[in-house]
Amino acid sequence: MAQSVLPRSVQRLIDEFARLPGIGPKSASRLTFYLLRSADNQAGELSAALGELKERTRLCSVCFNITEDDPCPLCDDDARDPRLLCVVEEPLDVLAIERSRAYSGRYHVLHGAISPVEGIGPEDLRINELVERIDKGNFTELILATNPTLEGESTALYLQRRLSDRTIRLTRLARGLPVGGDLEYTDEITLGRAFEGRQNL
Amino acid sequence: MAQSVLPRSVQRLIDEFARLPGIGPKSASRLTFYLLRSADNQAGELSAALGELKERTRLCSVCFNITEDDPCPLCDDDARDPRLLCVVEEPLDVLAIERSRAYSGRYHVLHGAISPVEGIGPEDLRINELVERIDKGNFTELILATNPTLEGESTALYLQRRLSDRTIRLTRLARGLPVGGDLEYTDEITLGRAFEGRQNL
Repeated sequence: MAQSVLPRSVQRLIDEFARLPGIGPKSASRLTFYLLRSADNQAGELSAALGELKERTRLCSVCFNITEDDPCPLCDDDARDPRLLCVVEEPLDVLAIERSRAYSGRYHVLHGAISPVEGIGPEDLRINELVERIDKGNFTELILATNPTLEGESTALYLQRRLSDRTIRLTRLARGLPVGGDLEYTDEITLGRAFEGRQNL
Repeated sequence: MAQSVLPRSVQRLIDEFARLPGIGPKSASRLTFYLLRSADNQAGELSAALGELKERTRLCSVCFNITEDDPCPLCDDDARDPRLLCVVEEPLDVLAIERSRAYSGRYHVLHGAISPVEGIGPEDLRINELVERIDKGNFTELILATNPTLEGESTALYLQRRLSDRTIRLTRLARGLPVGGDLEYTDEITLGRAFEGRQNL
């Protein structure tokens, strides 16, 4: 009923916006009509940015962060400490840690965490690549910066067992992080303190 | 600092999302990384829908609602009462009224309301077209369904004065609408009651 009064192309954009996380049907309508009203070519610019996204980006072959250049600027930066390696679940976690300015080593992005409920096992993550990287490199410390959630803790525990016969020092971010929270939402100061207070496993 | 670790195309999409109303920098990041992770071509489909939006849509030459066909399906529907005309500020208001199922006449979209503060006068709205439409047509009632806000009331008052020498009956939606609110957010039942209880001006 209500749909029939909307042009198909307008309804299509509302439906696409509503598929995004955190955007309901009402917000999707608001965004669509905002773009219809906007005088400049804002819809076109958003469209172009979206089109460019997957075309230009790839995963860094070293750390698996999202990048336009391979290796990524972080892997390519000789000023960063080559002995420290920090494992995170997602690219957004790298961004959050960089904002804290508490860390200047290297990264490794797993692209998820072990979750039996969701059917995600170690083989679905970049864990083999991590082990290979540790064996080939000269890292002295591996910081397990997975989220302080059930899945993140399980992943850290799995990595601890998997790497138990290596000489590399394993650390975990200090429990300054709110348990059950999400690393990428943590403010800079808390995240900085968590880096300073990291503990031996 | 934080920007430099993000690929340019990723930052560009975050910036474009953050320009949209109600989407802050954190939400913009979340949406961008959600699209980067999504396995299917969701970014491409959203991009295409955005590209199509302004290309396919125009304003109906009769009622100035947004449409793909001219005249729009509502103006082209012979089953709708040709004696009733309902004036609204925005296309989303038409959608809200259609959802209420309380009205089956014609529409006229002004595309805004008179606002001296924002420098919007009668000549910036589709008011001349409305007067012309009334003079040429056989409407018996004009329902002033502008928002129950200062601007909406001013616009209704302006239209009342402008049309004072016409014989058309002028009505205003009943004050079931919450004053200071926005018509497009009103639930169906309230909006339906407001239609039933409309008053002579």
